[in-house]
Amino acid sequence: MAGADVSRLRELNSLSIVRAMRGQPPATVTELAARTGLSRPGTDVVVRGLVHDGWVQVVEPDGSSVGRPARRYRFNAGAGHVLGVDVGVHKILVLLADLEGQVLRSHRLPVEPDADPAARLEAVDAAITQCLADAGMRPDRIWAVTVGVTGPVDTTGRTTLFTPLPGWADVSPAEHLSARFGCPILVENDCKLAAVAERWKGAAQDADDIVYLLAGMRVGAGLILDGTLRRGYGGAAGEIGALKAVRWLSAPSRFENCPGVPDDIHPNDKAAWVFERAREGDRHARAALRRYVKDLAVGAAALVLTLDPQVVVLGGGYSRSADLLIDPLEQELRRLCLRVPEIRASDLGADSVALGALRVALDQVDARLFTDGMPAPLTVQA
Amino acid sequence: MAGADVSRLRELNSLSIVRAMRGQPPATVTELAARTGLSRPGTDVVVRGLVHDGWVQVVEPDGSSVGRPARRYRFNAGAGHVLGVDVGVHKILVLLADLEGQVLRSHRLPVEPDADPAARLEAVDAAITQCLADAGMRPDRIWAVTVGVTGPVDTTGRTTLFTPLPGWADVSPAEHLSARFGCPILVENDCKLAAVAERWKGAAQDADDIVYLLAGMRVGAGLILDGTLRRGYGGAAGEIGALKAVRWLSAPSRFENCPGVPDDIHPNDKAAWVFERAREGDRHARAALRRYVKDLAVGAAALVLTLDPQVVVLGGGYSRSADLLIDPLEQELRRLCLRVPEIRASDLGADSVALGALRVALDQVDARLFTDGMPAPLTVQA
Repeated sequence: MAGADVSRLRELNSLSIVRAMRGQPPATVTELAARTGLSRPGTDVVVRGLVHDGWVQVVEPDGSSVGRPARRYRFNAGAGHVLGVDVGVHKILVLLADLEGQVLRSHRLPVEPDADPAARLEAVDAAITQCLADAGMRPDRIWAVTVGVTGPVDTTGRTTLFTPLPGWADVSPAEHLSARFGCPILVENDCKLAAVAERWKGAAQDADDIVYLLAGMRVGAGLILDGTLRRGYGGAAGEIGALKAVRWLSAPSRFENCPGVPDDIHPNDKAAWVFERAREGDRHARAALRRYVKDLAVGAAALVLTLDPQVVVLGGGYSRSADLLIDPLEQELRRLCLRVPEIRASDLGADSVALGALRVALDQVDARLFTDGMPAPLTVQA
Repeated sequence: MAGADVSRLRELNSLSIVRAMRGQPPATVTELAARTGLSRPGTDVVVRGLVHDGWVQVVEPDGSSVGRPARRYRFNAGAGHVLGVDVGVHKILVLLADLEGQVLRSHRLPVEPDADPAARLEAVDAAITQCLADAGMRPDRIWAVTVGVTGPVDTTGRTTLFTPLPGWADVSPAEHLSARFGCPILVENDCKLAAVAERWKGAAQDADDIVYLLAGMRVGAGLILDGTLRRGYGGAAGEIGALKAVRWLSAPSRFENCPGVPDDIHPNDKAAWVFERAREGDRHARAALRRYVKDLAVGAAALVLTLDPQVVVLGGGYSRSADLLIDPLEQELRRLCLRVPEIRASDLGADSVALGALRVALDQVDARLFTDGMPAPLTVQA
């Protein structure tokens, strides 16, 4: 075999071993050989190389076992890091994670719904700066960044078709952040990222066909089909809410318009007020809830009838009151659909978009490793 | 290498060479070696084996070239055959094709819309019998059969959720045909098969993300996403027409109810009558057409907003008048959608369902060959 072939083979074996290690407890060379189907001596050589390059860490035996215990190895999750950024209407949230997806730090900053792009980007910068400072980490230790924004994201990473963020349609978050980060920076729609998060760490880890409903101050949807995020040919999949017949634009006003809602509380809190009254049996609150669910259900039914998913995940701010929403939503879907999928409540709360952004950033790192090959982490950083 | 490994390797090489041959003009061993990356002597051995087994045919030189011309080889498309069957409301259509997908024979029988299952299955049997007889082919020469039916097809191959065919919900076409055919028999929804046909031989051969609209006496949809037919978790993807807000159920009545349509012509012909009058500029006919397109567009917009496809293909009986439909449909979609995909007319006509059935049957044959391995055709038949 030629030299280049040998080197490529060793790299493929390195990748097999890294795959076999990730997300697993420390393992011996014998265990890794069994998992990968490589020979024990071959595994040993590759593991030593990975330790040398910084991809793998040695876990010294703790001396508690009888005889001479075998050395164990684990993937060095700290070899690199990724950032997930949620640029919301009301908040910026930044999560920092290692290569195993473990969240190490987070920083959240409020932002005014009517903030202009400069003010919003300033908040993004400040939240990232604080998050990295808390972790004592330089920007060049970050291997990938994903930014979640509201509205369908086109091929240039902008939300030119539609976004509720004032003045934001022409903003390129990737361009803005590239001043600070040399790594790949992806921009993706918030509902799509939340859907990814539900399959990664949320309510739909067992499913490959997922309709994610964002139910909050806005209503939106993200789709996972055959285990893959559906972006759409122009990045605009899941935007059923743009169809007027679907009533998603007006749905949240059902809560604001509920008789008895105090005028002087924040719009954010009006739904919570209605949910609380509905729990107490208040007639108006229950009627508002019913109307909201009916609005939500038309779009949900359109998605279910189109895609016939395994699971519908109800997420977003209102999912904290999922106990009040899921049963009536299911009843409506039974009325409207041919086959009703299981409906589950999200428990990722307000972090789901940033969590999904982390997962997409990690996928980006993996794609580079597993297609471009596997340089030592120090090379990757540069 | 152990004997089993050598045999498996030869099989893999056989499959590479078959792949390199199919759909291509006859090729020399040298050309096949270049296409597959195998050595010339190795290719020669494998090709001889394939000729012996009946998978490959020798094309003798025609003597027109100077010097000693090289022998050429081609895939023996006649090694096996597949059937595609369209069980429609008004007709049964059977297509017989070879392994290259070349249609060799077809047979069409009319069937009454209110025929009971026994009568409809009898027509299916008669059409298949006639098609095979015309080709002089025994049922054991058929390697796969796919049957297209109306309504979402569940995992048992039945249309239990919904079908317009009277009494048909519990019918298992696969079970019925298994009395005659020992090969795999698949059942699939008609719109899904028509979508497959458009990507295979129709208006969307260049696209991976396709919304197919069946516009005829009924309205339906089939979806190809990332190059794969979307069946849905329970086989019910694409059934957006079941949503009342979408008005697909009532859309075709726009033609029947057009003022001036003669009462005594067949329902099938009423739309054609309206299209003709609309072409002549008749006010009522143009109004009926506008109303039909508006109905069609709501569901089409729901599909486009959900999936953001590259192409919408307009098929079904009314696609013969696509010149009257596509412009107004596009205008409606512009009004309703964020991003409007290209809209194309199908030119496969009434054969699209049976053509898609052929493709699915050929995929089934391929899946068996390329995963289970490649016995000689005589063994496959048995």
